[in-house]
Amino acid sequence: MKIIIVGGVACGPKAAARLHRLRPHADITIIEKGELLSYAGCGMPYYISGEVHNINELMKTNLGIVRDSHYFRNFKGLNVRNLTLATRIDRQKKQLEILDLQSITREMIPYDKLILATGGQPIMPPIPGIDLKGVHSLHDLHSARKIKDAIRDGAKKAVIIGGGAIGIEVADAFIKNDVETTIIEAKNRLFAKVLDPDMSATVQDYLAVDDIILQLSTRVIGFEGNEEGGLKKVITDRGIVDADLVINAIGVHPNTLLAEDAGLELGVTGAIRVNAHMQTTDPDIYAGGDCVESIHLITRQPVYIPMGDTANKHGRVIANHIAEFYPSNSFPGVLGTAIYKYGDLSIGHSGVTHTMATSLGYDCESILYPGLDKPEFFPTARRIDMKLVADRKNHRIIGVQIVGEGEVSKRLDVLATAMTFGATVEQLAHLDLGYAPPYSPAIDNAINAANICCNKLNDVSRSVTPAQVWQMRQNGSKLLLVDVRTQREYQSQRIDLEDVVHIPLNLLRQRMAELPRDRPVITFCKVGLRGYEACQLLRGLGLDNACFMEGGVALWPYPKITGQPEQPNLSTQ
Amino acid sequence: MKIIIVGGVACGPKAAARLHRLRPHADITIIEKGELLSYAGCGMPYYISGEVHNINELMKTNLGIVRDSHYFRNFKGLNVRNLTLATRIDRQKKQLEILDLQSITREMIPYDKLILATGGQPIMPPIPGIDLKGVHSLHDLHSARKIKDAIRDGAKKAVIIGGGAIGIEVADAFIKNDVETTIIEAKNRLFAKVLDPDMSATVQDYLAVDDIILQLSTRVIGFEGNEEGGLKKVITDRGIVDADLVINAIGVHPNTLLAEDAGLELGVTGAIRVNAHMQTTDPDIYAGGDCVESIHLITRQPVYIPMGDTANKHGRVIANHIAEFYPSNSFPGVLGTAIYKYGDLSIGHSGVTHTMATSLGYDCESILYPGLDKPEFFPTARRIDMKLVADRKNHRIIGVQIVGEGEVSKRLDVLATAMTFGATVEQLAHLDLGYAPPYSPAIDNAINAANICCNKLNDVSRSVTPAQVWQMRQNGSKLLLVDVRTQREYQSQRIDLEDVVHIPLNLLRQRMAELPRDRPVITFCKVGLRGYEACQLLRGLGLDNACFMEGGVALWPYPKITGQPEQPNLSTQ
Repeated sequence: MKIIIVGGVACGPKAAARLHRLRPHADITIIEKGELLSYAGCGMPYYISGEVHNINELMKTNLGIVRDSHYFRNFKGLNVRNLTLATRIDRQKKQLEILDLQSITREMIPYDKLILATGGQPIMPPIPGIDLKGVHSLHDLHSARKIKDAIRDGAKKAVIIGGGAIGIEVADAFIKNDVETTIIEAKNRLFAKVLDPDMSATVQDYLAVDDIILQLSTRVIGFEGNEEGGLKKVITDRGIVDADLVINAIGVHPNTLLAEDAGLELGVTGAIRVNAHMQTTDPDIYAGGDCVESIHLITRQPVYIPMGDTANKHGRVIANHIAEFYPSNSFPGVLGTAIYKYGDLSIGHSGVTHTMATSLGYDCESILYPGLDKPEFFPTARRIDMKLVADRKNHRIIGVQIVGEGEVSKRLDVLATAMTFGATVEQLAHLDLGYAPPYSPAIDNAINAANICCNKLNDVSRSVTPAQVWQMRQNGSKLLLVDVRTQREYQSQRIDLEDVVHIPLNLLRQRMAELPRDRPVITFCKVGLRGYEACQLLRGLGLDNACFMEGGVALWPYPKITGQPEQPNLSTQ
Repeated sequence: MKIIIVGGVACGPKAAARLHRLRPHADITIIEKGELLSYAGCGMPYYISGEVHNINELMKTNLGIVRDSHYFRNFKGLNVRNLTLATRIDRQKKQLEILDLQSITREMIPYDKLILATGGQPIMPPIPGIDLKGVHSLHDLHSARKIKDAIRDGAKKAVIIGGGAIGIEVADAFIKNDVETTIIEAKNRLFAKVLDPDMSATVQDYLAVDDIILQLSTRVIGFEGNEEGGLKKVITDRGIVDADLVINAIGVHPNTLLAEDAGLELGVTGAIRVNAHMQTTDPDIYAGGDCVESIHLITRQPVYIPMGDTANKHGRVIANHIAEFYPSNSFPGVLGTAIYKYGDLSIGHSGVTHTMATSLGYDCESILYPGLDKPEFFPTARRIDMKLVADRKNHRIIGVQIVGEGEVSKRLDVLATAMTFGATVEQLAHLDLGYAPPYSPAIDNAINAANICCNKLNDVSRSVTPAQVWQMRQNGSKLLLVDVRTQREYQSQRIDLEDVVHIPLNLLRQRMAELPRDRPVITFCKVGLRGYEACQLLRGLGLDNACFMEGGVALWPYPKITGQPEQPNLSTQ
């Protein structure tokens, strides 16, 4: 059996290696247009930041062997034609036309099975000046090296176009290199596709501390260079930004040319359509990695979410299907789980946002829950802010967003796993997770979030988010906010609104007569629990117009008044 | 409705607080024999180690309020009778007899619902001298303070009796205080109930580096003191150990006296038997926390696994059931998930071990997989050693053990979540987890382990563990071990057996004639992948007697020869 694989990063080499192990006699050839294969593309921002010292570390095995065609032949038993472009598929003859980029010779090679792992590439908007020397995209080791060189050569002012995953990782790398950084984003907030506005606000607040300049709701319309073709200015619809380095990070689109020319079907997302076995509309041609679309496990809709880990799984499924390894030859789909690091901040999400779920017609509910990732008494405890989105109909979790300096990754992966199996908030609340103080609070954040969500879905608690409170006020609703924290907390920082009164929780019962019955009474504390307790107390005493504000002062993204500093710890009481 | 709760730590206060929020008018009283309630018992080892500086941090909210009876009354709306012992239940009259420990007066108080959260206490073996001043158990803040004081007063040689969770946490605290520490364990290895022998070996190797003395298969038969009643020696069946401080950490048993006297049924484990709503055999009497047994989610057998996080969940379920909050009034059971920290080592487990599963009649398979917790190129990548146990019948994961300096907790919780939902290894392999280099390799350890297990269960790969190889040799089987690593790796460290040959992977095909066909040929590398590839190559070439050794040199717990140092990184190639 002759198998040709087009593309030598992630999906391609994984399919090849797996196939070779399952079918040692199969004749497997990888076609790769570049020189190197199987390099660690996701490591590029860490090379730019300096955390990975040498670009070779992304290209070599840790035995010091460069992953070139010799390596694949000698260690993996695979044929590799690198510096070779796949130019055309003849599906009738089952042949692939290739172009040797060194000798500039064309050749037709036969296949029994063809695997397209052609990847994706940065979307290059048609903006005048985008071909200037200082304008980059981070899409391969070559571009990573050019960006690193630009910093070494003294680039001091960078503009990143696009406030998503790559944008944030590159911003982190730039800040670590003392490069003044502006992020220009066309939408009115960062991570607009994958986070809800309240969680975007948390990220934006964090970036502001590092003096990253955010230009939201702003479009780049041109670049201006100097005489040598170098970059000088980025021109936007809101003004001009000086810059000697620009990273275009608006997104990636799939490389589908080869597939399209061969008459293979593309999906609604513009990426190659494949079935669960990763077969294209031609069953002898498979496709995987950043060139295909996937089914979203929550919405069951096709989505284009290119990810390195998904590409590896695709490669394995393709190999399993070709080798007739039935137990694992279908790819179930994706949740779009992703995580990024900016400084000490982790940003993770999986499933759907509240915004997206609502637009898709879900009747959903969500909760905001800021909490410490370890017990209060443990010195390394840090805050993480969690948002859970659940389906009202069946109480299943359909989305999660987590942002914070504490341990985000674990809760993200636990929730992604739970969502995969259709977990309800009630089931999530009973997970038996590993508890010890260096790892989590006795009631893990994921479990606490599930309990909070369970209360809300079952109408035990009544709550609103800071954004809803703000909106109610904008709409002219009359309401009273009751800050139930201690005197000391109130003095240290408080919400800057005239319709806030301060009544500490332990005095609430005796001062209840002060509260109106003709408008919403919204209790709140630092993070939520005492606000909730206050609300339950008031409702128990007959104040049916009471509810509490999720996230409390901690997640209030609007103006606050700051007084004396408080103790360092965050109350979760 | 009048609710009486016996026990003021974990389960009791949780049930009380939840019930108060659900039923603000319920009359709730907590009876606690000690002075303080709701302290953080799991934090005690970190107070002894010095990571938590002040014992008050375990007793106060982070607003600086001590969790005493005033706190519960003022902030939580609960009545508390502390320094009060519950002495008898009159089930006919629905009354509880209590004894005020200060005034020494008895009283009968009526209840509609009674909650027993009486906890557990250390098993005190009837060994002569166990009442000497220097012999402690770590079971409350009072004992934690005494142990800390002993170190401050100059204790230099400690013996810990019991090589389980508490033993290891206390050992860590002692080493951090420069106390020479001996662990005496009656079984022939540490963590014998919750880890398989290969994983126990990994932990033991790690402790050896810190000069912790392990006396395994050893029983303490007495203690010897000096004239002042202080401790001098620990006498075992194998000799005498000098010690000025002893921690009895052999285990905990449930406090069931009150329940037994009232004629409530105990389960086979000796703990109070409860139904899914946490009701005892008297439906008006609930029990939860360290005094009850649970159903194991994998085996469906009753187990006694006292845990702080479980106790909190019990408290919530009890409150939900009493308050008729139907959506979450049943406790499904436990996996026995637990994690401990010793130095930089994390030790986690969930579900059943291979040993236990086999003894319960499971037809199970397991795999060993040592791997880096992040990509090789990422500077903070550290090793974690994982063992997965799966049911051959349905390919479900039934157990996991993870030990290492890398990120253990996340994989443990992901696998515990997957097990909760009956995940098969095939499903696990397709989880969409959050990938970025600071958090995990592109193929997360949990997913890689699932793939390895899937190969083994489906007979794609054929492998044996180091323990099996050792056993085969002990049994006199002839076999050949083939080390397929590079020359440099071989020179740096190798397995010390005469039946090992060294043939680097890239030379294996041409040197195949050297390999025998009349006995097992067992390939191995540093961790497993190249050993597996070598085995697949040999089997593809017709050598049907080939298999590979899981875990490779990294998990070989028997003698090794060490030569020149190698590069720091661990190969996962």
